Amino acid sequence: MTMSTALLTDHYELTMLQAALRSGAAQRRAVFEVFARHLPGGRRYGVVAGIGRVLDELERFRFGDEELAYLSEKKIVDAETLAFLADYRFSGSVYGYREGDLYFPASPILVVEGTFAEAVLLETMALSILNHDCAIASAASRMSNAAGSRPLIEMGSRRTHERAAVAAARAAYIAGFTATSNLMAGHVYGVPTAGTAAHAFILLHDSEKAAFEAQIASMGVGTTLLVDTYDVPEAVRTAVELAGGDLGAVRIDSGDLAAAAQEVREQLDALGAFKTRILVTSDLDEYAIAALAAAPVDAYGIGTSLVTGSGVPTAALVYKLVARETATGKLEPVAKRSVGKPSRGGRKNAYRLLDPTGHFDTELVTTSAMVPEGGIPLLHELVREGTVIGREPLESARTRHREAVNRLPQEALHLGRGYAAIPTEFA
Amino acid sequence: MTMSTALLTDHYELTMLQAALRSGAAQRRAVFEVFARHLPGGRRYGVVAGIGRVLDELERFRFGDEELAYLSEKKIVDAETLAFLADYRFSGSVYGYREGDLYFPASPILVVEGTFAEAVLLETMALSILNHDCAIASAASRMSNAAGSRPLIEMGSRRTHERAAVAAARAAYIAGFTATSNLMAGHVYGVPTAGTAAHAFILLHDSEKAAFEAQIASMGVGTTLLVDTYDVPEAVRTAVELAGGDLGAVRIDSGDLAAAAQEVREQLDALGAFKTRILVTSDLDEYAIAALAAAPVDAYGIGTSLVTGSGVPTAALVYKLVARETATGKLEPVAKRSVGKPSRGGRKNAYRLLDPTGHFDTELVTTSAMVPEGGIPLLHELVREGTVIGREPLESARTRHREAVNRLPQEALHLGRGYAAIPTEFA
Repeated sequence: MTMSTALLTDHYELTMLQAALRSGAAQRRAVFEVFARHLPGGRRYGVVAGIGRVLDELERFRFGDEELAYLSEKKIVDAETLAFLADYRFSGSVYGYREGDLYFPASPILVVEGTFAEAVLLETMALSILNHDCAIASAASRMSNAAGSRPLIEMGSRRTHERAAVAAARAAYIAGFTATSNLMAGHVYGVPTAGTAAHAFILLHDSEKAAFEAQIASMGVGTTLLVDTYDVPEAVRTAVELAGGDLGAVRIDSGDLAAAAQEVREQLDALGAFKTRILVTSDLDEYAIAALAAAPVDAYGIGTSLVTGSGVPTAALVYKLVARETATGKLEPVAKRSVGKPSRGGRKNAYRLLDPTGHFDTELVTTSAMVPEGGIPLLHELVREGTVIGREPLESARTRHREAVNRLPQEALHLGRGYAAIPTEFA
Repeated sequence: MTMSTALLTDHYELTMLQAALRSGAAQRRAVFEVFARHLPGGRRYGVVAGIGRVLDELERFRFGDEELAYLSEKKIVDAETLAFLADYRFSGSVYGYREGDLYFPASPILVVEGTFAEAVLLETMALSILNHDCAIASAASRMSNAAGSRPLIEMGSRRTHERAAVAAARAAYIAGFTATSNLMAGHVYGVPTAGTAAHAFILLHDSEKAAFEAQIASMGVGTTLLVDTYDVPEAVRTAVELAGGDLGAVRIDSGDLAAAAQEVREQLDALGAFKTRILVTSDLDEYAIAALAAAPVDAYGIGTSLVTGSGVPTAALVYKLVARETATGKLEPVAKRSVGKPSRGGRKNAYRLLDPTGHFDTELVTTSAMVPEGGIPLLHELVREGTVIGREPLESARTRHREAVNRLPQEALHLGRGYAAIPTEFA
């Protein structure tokens, strides 16, 4: 693994560059757009996440000696192209939706403007990040809605690629999760981290009681004890015996969680541990969370379903050329006509229109410069002449997301499959 | 992103370590095992991939100043634990299945032996890598079986996390793919790369003909021209007109691929381009590949379905403590009894037994030292006293995989849902 992100790129981007350098078309101004033709999985809305990571990786998108040597040795491109890459710095503009905001079919969530040569190279990097992070955030948002005010802990690192795990924790935090188990996400992005112990810790000791004693001695009575290694009622009895009514929480990781939570709550209350909370984990998704709404559960730990996008592991975003300079120097809309996969030409603007109650009503995508009255502008300047200017704290994205979800029509929060919550209109 | 992999770890591993250091149990010898309780998605077999990456990351698993400062600042662990982490080097042993080999429910694909303290820290890193890479390789193997002798090009980077994409290309190559679009996978792992041009290249030029001319001028007539930007028959006519009968290939990326391939083949033959091959791409999975078996297709490009594991994005592998030293110094099997998620105690060995025709018959998992007659030993020494000794070239894994698939019972290659191709027996 190298720190440069320049080879996180598809082979064909470099061969296209080579051919365009030779034909002279490489220097034509071009506009690329990232959008989704549809929201996969019958989702009502998508959640924008990963924009900040795109900006980070853009700054590391440099072809150094190591990268150039590889491309040269494998004869992937010719000498002229290698020389271009050695000097490559993106010098164009990027506009994008803000993280935490929502998107709908055809929302132009990222607009990249520059020469064809400099903009075509960013396709794979931008799409990889946005397809992954938006998919995770979109799933996380549904889980947050289902959990209501109960906290959600992301603990899916072990179920996905080790670096994807870090990005997933970040995306989940934007979409309302409270914390993550992933320490790298804590270190790199400041996401709060959480965790106490696994079954291995219980099994390591000569008895469950000895393990609980060791954990309490180290972490205090406010810790969370895992109570399902052997027998849940016995574990709960031991836990309260050792920690008293100040025991922070117990975690249940198996069985019928609704029934188990009910029984454990009753047992905790009978033992006087009224304040002790119940954390449940074990293959939960948004449907399981919703099904536990009536159970005495205080927090959820979510793993596999979060990091795999709960059935939608990728967001179906594409990166398409929508305008380019002609031989006569004019910027002209372009669109392909491939069967079932047409694109819509032209440099877009996007606005969200509200209904009289302040809820989202329409996603307006326009190729004109006219600003619709009362429309919220959705595209923000992120990169100007190659310099990143659009960074923001992760907390801003998290707040924006909460506010955006509150402005959705009520039916958008239904978990079942359906159509986009608001229509996309073109002007 | 830092180069150290030590924070690709769940918070609770460090708190468990702290508590175990305090209780004294941290220095007990322990054996952890990676296995799958079941094969998700009704798969008949799993494919081992990622072992080489685990070895790479193990060597980078060091808590440096940056990592320690974070853990200290956030008060994640106490001073004693920080001191332990600062000196942390894994000094134990690792045994594992070889990459490209197959696995079945309960196959002990990785066995980690050391003190509890040193082995517990590797859980998340090992599982992240193996759950991802095995899921991708298992999907890729099904696609390879469906494609038969036709080459498969992996081009899914844009549909998954940017670093997961590199690992996915590696896993797909192990399981029979021919090449990848991902340049980083070419650079880091030596996977052959491929690609020519996207629709953007066609749209960039003032006409399709001008684009084809530019591409041929740069890449030669042996290149692959993308023919579905506007009208396929017109594009094919233009392509052959420009490149003649030596045109390498045409790519079709939309529409009814079986019908389109048939029409394009007829047109190419009528134009005298008998040798020009047909590459198809567009949301292909193993079922679509199988459905195209009778179509005149020469190669497949596979994206989304490969990098998302074709419906099974993670492999359901777990990392469980199966044995540990008691207070009296004896190594003893341990197992949890959680409802529906029990584990099986004891340090395992594993052998594959053959039937009289040389095909795989049984996966034998044993806690005894007795070697079954004719059984193929599946666990190999990878790390000895902390030193990696089990590296091998990727080509070995690729060859091993091809040979292993040939030894499966015929019905294991069916694409439908089913049970494991061979039974796992315990001795």
